[in-house]
Amino acid sequence: MSSAKTHRIPPRSGVSFKIKKGQYLTVIDPEGEQVSDMISYSVEDPREYLSSGRSIDYASRLFLTTDDILYSNRSTPMWTIGEDQVGRHDFTLTPCSAEMFRKLYNEDDPHRGCFGNLSAAVAKYGIGPDQVPIAFNIFMYVHVDGDTGEIEVRPPKSKAGQFTRFRAEMDMIVALTACSAGQSNNFDFKPIDYYISEEGV
Amino acid sequence: MSSAKTHRIPPRSGVSFKIKKGQYLTVIDPEGEQVSDMISYSVEDPREYLSSGRSIDYASRLFLTTDDILYSNRSTPMWTIGEDQVGRHDFTLTPCSAEMFRKLYNEDDPHRGCFGNLSAAVAKYGIGPDQVPIAFNIFMYVHVDGDTGEIEVRPPKSKAGQFTRFRAEMDMIVALTACSAGQSNNFDFKPIDYYISEEGV
Repeated sequence: MSSAKTHRIPPRSGVSFKIKKGQYLTVIDPEGEQVSDMISYSVEDPREYLSSGRSIDYASRLFLTTDDILYSNRSTPMWTIGEDQVGRHDFTLTPCSAEMFRKLYNEDDPHRGCFGNLSAAVAKYGIGPDQVPIAFNIFMYVHVDGDTGEIEVRPPKSKAGQFTRFRAEMDMIVALTACSAGQSNNFDFKPIDYYISEEGV
Repeated sequence: MSSAKTHRIPPRSGVSFKIKKGQYLTVIDPEGEQVSDMISYSVEDPREYLSSGRSIDYASRLFLTTDDILYSNRSTPMWTIGEDQVGRHDFTLTPCSAEMFRKLYNEDDPHRGCFGNLSAAVAKYGIGPDQVPIAFNIFMYVHVDGDTGEIEVRPPKSKAGQFTRFRAEMDMIVALTACSAGQSNNFDFKPIDYYISEEGV
């Protein structure tokens, strides 16, 4: 664990902050089997955002890990994945939302989900809910059947204390959650920890 | 073939048009093995757009076909897929672009690609290039390895004259291309045909 200040995101909530090019963001799963949805935007022009479609295309791979680059919609590198103790994340699904809980799980009075938490977190930067894209869903384990295309959300492979580190490749606004969807975290809502450091440790 | 007026999209180009709720859009591959990238926006508020992440999440499947619904980022149905003579499309990759041709294929003087064509096509509706999302890539065959996550663009399964039909579930601005990426169409740039009809024929 770094000596850098570690922040805690309480269960089913989200935060936002700025990060500078060259800094590192380390996202920790303190209790294991929890997911953190991450989105980011260029500070210079928040219409430039983290793009799953560009990143998957350039990697020619759905699952991204150490040394893979996460690109913006303008094909500019936003993040490089550094040490990755978990190795499996999702980049195909939009953040869980009240509408998702209604449609998929028939909940009558649903939580606002990661979508609501991310939208609330970035509002102070003038970014609206329609600008919340597909997130990089850290630690989320989505099993894919390559023949049928069927996907299934399974418990994350993350064990307590494991982390994934990202180097910022531009100045960014970042939002992170401790996920609100039972399926994503084996039905036990837990916190997420993170810290920002100048070195990749 | 319907008696409705059929339009032709020349190779490596794009068009845009409006469609009303309840109308049908039929997209035809006249020569076979060609791809058409489709994006759409709510006429009422173009910040509402076709969302791969929502659609894949609600279907719990990467590959969508007859009876599947394509959702907006606000979780509202935009399209229902009707008769689908091809059955395999992609919904994970952003449209091909000049940057993509440079990065993946080392082209020095690249074509503007479907991204440039779609951006140009929707500009007249006040929609900017940053609002061009992951497209529904009609007829695009992206092979997925479920174990490694590796993806590979292969020749489309579409044969000459085959089509896929979509019912519009809201009033929309639509843009469609005849794809500009060699990999997508077995290295033979071809046109795409389409027509709009009041009935699903």
